[in-house]
Amino acid sequence: MKQHFSSRAAGARRSAIRELLKLTEQPDIISFGGGLPAPESFPHEELAVIAADLLRNDYRNVLQYGTTEGSRTLRRAMVEWLRPQGIDVTLDELLVTSASQQGLDLLCKAFFDPGDVVFCDLPTYLGAVQAFSLFQADKIGVPLEEDGMDIGVLEEKIREARAAGKKLKGVYVIPDFQNPSGITMSLAKRKALLAVAQREDLLIFEDDPYGHLRFAGEPIPSIFSMDREGRTILLLTFSKVMAAGLRLAVMAARGDLMDALVRVKQPTDLCTSKFTQMLAARYMNEYGLDRHLEDIRPIYREKKEAMIRALEKHMPDEEGLRWTNPDGGLFIWVWLPEGVDAEEMLGRAIEHHVAYVPGSSSYVDGDGKNTMRLSFSLCTPAEIDEGIRRLAKVVAETIAARKVGAAA
Amino acid sequence: MKQHFSSRAAGARRSAIRELLKLTEQPDIISFGGGLPAPESFPHEELAVIAADLLRNDYRNVLQYGTTEGSRTLRRAMVEWLRPQGIDVTLDELLVTSASQQGLDLLCKAFFDPGDVVFCDLPTYLGAVQAFSLFQADKIGVPLEEDGMDIGVLEEKIREARAAGKKLKGVYVIPDFQNPSGITMSLAKRKALLAVAQREDLLIFEDDPYGHLRFAGEPIPSIFSMDREGRTILLLTFSKVMAAGLRLAVMAARGDLMDALVRVKQPTDLCTSKFTQMLAARYMNEYGLDRHLEDIRPIYREKKEAMIRALEKHMPDEEGLRWTNPDGGLFIWVWLPEGVDAEEMLGRAIEHHVAYVPGSSSYVDGDGKNTMRLSFSLCTPAEIDEGIRRLAKVVAETIAARKVGAAA
Repeated sequence: MKQHFSSRAAGARRSAIRELLKLTEQPDIISFGGGLPAPESFPHEELAVIAADLLRNDYRNVLQYGTTEGSRTLRRAMVEWLRPQGIDVTLDELLVTSASQQGLDLLCKAFFDPGDVVFCDLPTYLGAVQAFSLFQADKIGVPLEEDGMDIGVLEEKIREARAAGKKLKGVYVIPDFQNPSGITMSLAKRKALLAVAQREDLLIFEDDPYGHLRFAGEPIPSIFSMDREGRTILLLTFSKVMAAGLRLAVMAARGDLMDALVRVKQPTDLCTSKFTQMLAARYMNEYGLDRHLEDIRPIYREKKEAMIRALEKHMPDEEGLRWTNPDGGLFIWVWLPEGVDAEEMLGRAIEHHVAYVPGSSSYVDGDGKNTMRLSFSLCTPAEIDEGIRRLAKVVAETIAARKVGAAA
Repeated sequence: MKQHFSSRAAGARRSAIRELLKLTEQPDIISFGGGLPAPESFPHEELAVIAADLLRNDYRNVLQYGTTEGSRTLRRAMVEWLRPQGIDVTLDELLVTSASQQGLDLLCKAFFDPGDVVFCDLPTYLGAVQAFSLFQADKIGVPLEEDGMDIGVLEEKIREARAAGKKLKGVYVIPDFQNPSGITMSLAKRKALLAVAQREDLLIFEDDPYGHLRFAGEPIPSIFSMDREGRTILLLTFSKVMAAGLRLAVMAARGDLMDALVRVKQPTDLCTSKFTQMLAARYMNEYGLDRHLEDIRPIYREKKEAMIRALEKHMPDEEGLRWTNPDGGLFIWVWLPEGVDAEEMLGRAIEHHVAYVPGSSSYVDGDGKNTMRLSFSLCTPAEIDEGIRRLAKVVAETIAARKVGAAA
């Protein structure tokens, strides 16, 4: 039946890494692989009370179809929550989506014809790469520095792409505690990116799943909040700040951009679940999302600190072996010495009952073989220490074997 | 910002009818417009008990990310439920989707390049038309007869399309109690369609949201169950048999076709909510879906009968004015006398506090101006009688005005 595949489906592949990571679901493996929020952060008891009440007393509403734009109650709660954060939006500038991955799908639908260019970090979020790939966008990578995308290289790549006659659409960034690197974009670079986008008439796709999980340092204004021209689309999600299983997110956009997004959402899924929307809205209105965030940030801080301590304690002292130390989010990024292949090493790591995500899958240019992503969100501090101990052993052995190989 | 729109988004329009129908949300309007399930059919009390239990005792699972393929518990429950219906599938031949509209989105993604041909009924489901349009498929309409698609015309259209050098992909049908017409495809036509698809190497997209809402007559085997070659994709949904607000559905496909669907679902939304999946699975396992269906079918039968009675009682006796009398589903289809424009008439109907969906939006060839869809699911029998009384008055006046116009 393969003769019936669309050209986009013929190109889409199941991720080999994803298949390998399925092995890591065995209980004796300590996995730093999945980018899953800490389950102890889910406000489950409060949601249980609200869910039962909604289903008993508002079932005619919450179990029925809703509007494509999303529940007005939820959007109103979001407008109020976002205002003190410097994000001024009206109800009509918010679109509820069935989680942020759908947001990416919608912006691909609304803005990308095959061959249209999107610029993204090297490395960047794998799910975004997959969404852009499905819509046959031309993904051009720009190196990520310790303070965000290299804006000079971005300008260079823009010139090259224009010279090649390509149609440029936008820049995809995750400014806060980026997936996979944990790196945060500085204020100066956010402003510089916005200036470039204005000059070059590009859109900015600002994906912010982790910004509210900041456990140290001061928040940096979102690009969306500084954009006076309405060329930025902001993606926010409930997955990490409330619960991933709700599959609920909100995207913010102005004017024509929002209009296009609503029009393509309609045939995509008609509407997002009103039940999960009202769960989130009632939780926000009755318990407060900021209060909840204050409760859960220490969970992530403690785990991140445990992982940094474990890395410092267990990892061998090797030239080129280093890692990020983020102020929020779920991820630590590790650079292994040049020439070490983290994809190859994963098999051995799994034999030693520890897992991670090889970084290469997050590079649209096939680079990053010597990098890996460690998620600290799912394990206890004790598991983190033991897992990093196992991983450090594999790293040390891999480096030693390479030296022997090089000498031979 | 319109210069940034993709060609598909530039083509997508907000439905004028949908905007008009927003007016019908006023409480003094009796609306036969929306295709919404009867809220009294939602098993809300049982769902309330299960939801609270899941969120208290299984929150680490149900509030977390799930697999793209969907919950094994839910798929296992579906496998068991489908077997006595003659639908034999394995777990891996079922894909959970975020409602059936997403199923349509996924099959467009997996199988349609711009210009690829899909054959569909005249009239057919508007949401499917919108999904196919978004992916720039070439929709070729085939007249719907009282027993389903005109297979002779289908064969003719296939020859014409092949002669024109088009790439043919498949046939989209809703065999049971079709949306919008309420018409059911006969067993003979299902077999004939399957034979044509086999001979011409076409896929069949079999959409079955209403088949289980049969309140009279005997079930007819699904095309999927008779297809020995695995070229049929079956879309089932929980929207009408449990609750639309769960946004939950399951699609069945074999081999390569399923593989392509899973690969395109991953970047579409990562996964469907495990919480809503487990709600449905637990409901099926603890209460039984067949028992529930036995409870809710009389609700729809009673309403349909009320609408048929009201139509017979109130509608004027005019040449060409007739309607369907379905054995299930949510819809009755009305043909007005030739020359009466149901789209034009809608404004006057709303003035008289009654609403419907003009049929023309369901015709991919721009035809059907003298048709309308009446949904009997949402109103009480008394409201149905009153609403049809108002509508009949508008119809009679419109026909009379036309005669005067014609005479002048």
